[in-house]
Amino acid sequence: MQTLTEPLLAQIRRAGNIVLATHINPDGDALGSLLGLADILEAAGKRVFRYLEEPVSYLYAFLPDVNQIQTDLAALDSFVDEAGEDILCISLDCGDRKRLGASADALLQIRPFAVIDHHKGNNGFGDYAWIDPHRSSTGEMVFDLAGELDLPVSEKAAVALYAAIVTDTGSFRYESTSSHTFAVAGQLVERGVRPDAIAGELYDNYTVGRLQLLQMVLATFDVHCGGQVAVITATRDMLERTGCNMGDTENFINLPRSVMSVQAAVFLKETETGVSVSLRAKDGCDVAEVAAVFGGGGHRNAAGFKASGSSIDEVRGRLLPVLGQALGC
Amino acid sequence: MQTLTEPLLAQIRRAGNIVLATHINPDGDALGSLLGLADILEAAGKRVFRYLEEPVSYLYAFLPDVNQIQTDLAALDSFVDEAGEDILCISLDCGDRKRLGASADALLQIRPFAVIDHHKGNNGFGDYAWIDPHRSSTGEMVFDLAGELDLPVSEKAAVALYAAIVTDTGSFRYESTSSHTFAVAGQLVERGVRPDAIAGELYDNYTVGRLQLLQMVLATFDVHCGGQVAVITATRDMLERTGCNMGDTENFINLPRSVMSVQAAVFLKETETGVSVSLRAKDGCDVAEVAAVFGGGGHRNAAGFKASGSSIDEVRGRLLPVLGQALGC
Repeated sequence: MQTLTEPLLAQIRRAGNIVLATHINPDGDALGSLLGLADILEAAGKRVFRYLEEPVSYLYAFLPDVNQIQTDLAALDSFVDEAGEDILCISLDCGDRKRLGASADALLQIRPFAVIDHHKGNNGFGDYAWIDPHRSSTGEMVFDLAGELDLPVSEKAAVALYAAIVTDTGSFRYESTSSHTFAVAGQLVERGVRPDAIAGELYDNYTVGRLQLLQMVLATFDVHCGGQVAVITATRDMLERTGCNMGDTENFINLPRSVMSVQAAVFLKETETGVSVSLRAKDGCDVAEVAAVFGGGGHRNAAGFKASGSSIDEVRGRLLPVLGQALGC
Repeated sequence: MQTLTEPLLAQIRRAGNIVLATHINPDGDALGSLLGLADILEAAGKRVFRYLEEPVSYLYAFLPDVNQIQTDLAALDSFVDEAGEDILCISLDCGDRKRLGASADALLQIRPFAVIDHHKGNNGFGDYAWIDPHRSSTGEMVFDLAGELDLPVSEKAAVALYAAIVTDTGSFRYESTSSHTFAVAGQLVERGVRPDAIAGELYDNYTVGRLQLLQMVLATFDVHCGGQVAVITATRDMLERTGCNMGDTENFINLPRSVMSVQAAVFLKETETGVSVSLRAKDGCDVAEVAAVFGGGGHRNAAGFKASGSSIDEVRGRLLPVLGQALGC
């Protein structure tokens, strides 16, 4: 944990040009905290470059100013050249320099480089860092940053930061949801956020094909270890038949996990090169340890690994005994 | 809308014996506001009778003091007799005297009778009423009532009131979620509520059979009107095969509703006597009007009707043209 210090605040106040970046495969917290902070800083008269390696998923197209995000490294170079020394780069919601993706080196050449993040294990890879793993989301931290800088949060920024908080708390359901999280959410609503509208954008975003895919995946549901382990499977054939891609399976694993008896849920996904495995656990099981047996990693409650060259049946056959041992069944 | 007035507060302060009641088929807000207020009043030295017509569903067995709820009308009579004039009955979260169920007459004989509720259209059927349809939940109102009465909210009461708020806002996703709702939620967390624990109790409560039932119901999913209307079906055979009852289909309709193109979702449920129909709409459609065509009712976004003696195919055949007309497709 690294607290928000005056030197970081001073760098933000000083810089007239600010590059904002976040992790690859950006989720709502990554994008919401980036777009929210961009709006706050621009309103304070700064030039802001919103950088992403890839275009934003259709799932987040509703975020304000999402079309201002740039994916062009050459444009980033020009921005940096013009700025000279009057510059600062801030990495948001990114727990590790590798997670900045292929642009990590280019971004880290911009100095000073600051890190604002809530991921446990972030060692602060820049010149200045504010890292608080007790925060629900980077969006929550950006709201407090605006307060420290005495900068107003517009309705537009509030929408982005609220979406960030909702995404990373699973709509105020995860352990990281604190009384302060609720206090910030309430202040964002006062700035014009409509919770039902954001929830609609974030959760009512199924396509017909994705719902059909969910049904097919649920048809594979089976339980082991007296109901403590649940397994679901997605094959490439299912994706083809429903016109979906693997990204459409996001959150599917929450359904088997929501069965009362289930301590560990397994999602086996057939990829071009083998099988990608997601694991989710309740308090009685540490799936990071299970994933580590197969060369993977993650957190106690959410982990995964990849099994190249293996079939779904092979992976299931190797994984279930290890999970059974972890659960003592 | 009827504001919280001094006469109602005076009645609560005066009465040494208080009967708390709520609507039939009680949900999390009904039970949470009842149990929360019971704890608050008992801590203030009052005798409280927690009355329900039927035992509490297993889904809410986690609520504190749920075993203190009584379903025995004779015990209620004794309580009332002993209390004499030192009594007050409070109906919580009940929008209509009919929704008090078969015990409505017995309860309404207790005088004075007070109503605390947030349902639109509640006309205040007692002697004193506090009705605020802008509130997210009756649980939110009970928290503010404790403040007005200057009574502390224990951790136990906080858990009950938090569960009430989460249930009636769909975890802070519905339109009724206000900045005040968030402020109350934050204060409840300060009193010891763990949002993840309550969310786990409220949402991770599937049985294996219920998840299998969900899969079977999703397998019936089809769309009409160019994707604007989605239909799912549950048959009695599905319930038998999964060991479920119709109550286990709660919230299933939210999945077809969450498809982006869908303006109206239909859930056809085969019952012993015919078909029970649930309708959910987004802003572009008024399903209360559609339900009214078939002798049913409800709200603009959530309505339903029963078709006795009809088959699922008959109901679908009659309903789809009416829905198509409502949507102009």
